[in-house]
Amino acid sequence: MLTMPDHLFDHATRVEAGDSRWQGRTSPDYWAFVSPFGGATAATILRALIEHPQRAGDPLALTVNYCAPIAEGPFDLDVRLIKANRSSQHWCVELTQGAEIATLATAVFAERRPSWSHQPAAFPQATPFAQVRPYPKTPAPWVKQYDLRFVEGCPDFRPGAKNENKTEPASAFTKLWIGDRVPRKIDALSLTAMSDAFFGRVFLARQELVPFGTVSLTTYFLADADDLADESITHLLAVADAKTFHKSYGDQNGELWSPSGRLLATTTQIAYFKA
Amino acid sequence: MLTMPDHLFDHATRVEAGDSRWQGRTSPDYWAFVSPFGGATAATILRALIEHPQRAGDPLALTVNYCAPIAEGPFDLDVRLIKANRSSQHWCVELTQGAEIATLATAVFAERRPSWSHQPAAFPQATPFAQVRPYPKTPAPWVKQYDLRFVEGCPDFRPGAKNENKTEPASAFTKLWIGDRVPRKIDALSLTAMSDAFFGRVFLARQELVPFGTVSLTTYFLADADDLADESITHLLAVADAKTFHKSYGDQNGELWSPSGRLLATTTQIAYFKA
Repeated sequence: MLTMPDHLFDHATRVEAGDSRWQGRTSPDYWAFVSPFGGATAATILRALIEHPQRAGDPLALTVNYCAPIAEGPFDLDVRLIKANRSSQHWCVELTQGAEIATLATAVFAERRPSWSHQPAAFPQATPFAQVRPYPKTPAPWVKQYDLRFVEGCPDFRPGAKNENKTEPASAFTKLWIGDRVPRKIDALSLTAMSDAFFGRVFLARQELVPFGTVSLTTYFLADADDLADESITHLLAVADAKTFHKSYGDQNGELWSPSGRLLATTTQIAYFKA
Repeated sequence: MLTMPDHLFDHATRVEAGDSRWQGRTSPDYWAFVSPFGGATAATILRALIEHPQRAGDPLALTVNYCAPIAEGPFDLDVRLIKANRSSQHWCVELTQGAEIATLATAVFAERRPSWSHQPAAFPQATPFAQVRPYPKTPAPWVKQYDLRFVEGCPDFRPGAKNENKTEPASAFTKLWIGDRVPRKIDALSLTAMSDAFFGRVFLARQELVPFGTVSLTTYFLADADDLADESITHLLAVADAKTFHKSYGDQNGELWSPSGRLLATTTQIAYFKA
């Protein structure tokens, strides 16, 4: 198993320290259609916060608004600590290229103190990781960085795969195992990226690729760094679904589970589509 | 039915126009424990955007981070249009009192163009609004502003209501009808407020009130102004649940439905609790 900073993911999301202004660079390894994979952008923003000298506590909530495509090359991260108290911090990050803001993010960090603990959500049962066939490599660079093993809702984008006689939309639900293609221990950074690593729900519902882009992504971290260290895992079980597609926008809600049955993160996003 | 600006909700969430700096004021009618009801704060922020001369399109996504309690009295709203293109706008809003930022929000507005439409989510069946008993008035001012009619998961905070012999946590799921106590047509502003009008999930799971505060709230608007005008409703069916409570934070996910079966909004939040 490769460790930082040799892993492609760590390379793709690395940042150079500044005071309030940090620098990053898009990675060809995590490229999507017209912009970097949104999960890599979100993880890069989170990394700038985690590595910030004023950071205290663990990530609790992250919202990333994708305002405009990020062009290949370098970008700046303007990082602002908005408010801090004894147990939490509120941050705002603007990712800029030249004078243009391409991505706007807010984050909350918190000292996770011991408390009453209760997990009402039920672990989605699944065929074990080792028994599921990996998703074949696809042309999109970022997809190649992940080991995707679909348990339910495996998309088939091959020409002719769509049943043209079927007029009813297909299910938008997916259950899959996901890990980095080159195994890497799951941390808050990879959780962030994986929370955007589901294929567009509209692709499943329509059984075809259509123009698509995530507009806003929110991830809640339900396990802290100690919890993730205890889990010590390189893949997780993920589920995602959609509730509605309407007037060019559709939603997605997802859960990221450790194989042991602990809910590590929940995520929601709203995305543009053309269909 | 009262119309703007005579309704208490419109009074509580009113703003005075500025260019980049707007003014608002907390309302005793929508007061919560130590701060205004978070839904009213979120709606006030959204109102400043909706009334902004540069605003185009309808609200699509709103994230509100509650950084610090808002003190009774006036506050400023620093409103910034971060990025705009032909079909969408990205905004950032800081709610300040003096030099302190109390609330940080981001919003996306979009022109909702016609598209393929599909709603996989199933309407949660419920006893009709008129047949459900209203929740009795409680001491918290903001709760009095709503007509809450619990179909499932009605909390009982009366002393002695908790079954002290029961060691298992109770369900965190709630299904209720909600409208403004003085009927007011549902619009994006009231959807925003109602997306924070569920009681803390931890109160239900533990069957008792504990120190609690929403940290971050995200709402997706799945119907635009035209859709809401077509619905022309004064109450909606709302469901909320929690997935986990751990190390002093718990999540909540919710759906807001029109009685006709249209999903109007989804909402998630992460909240602090002490237990």
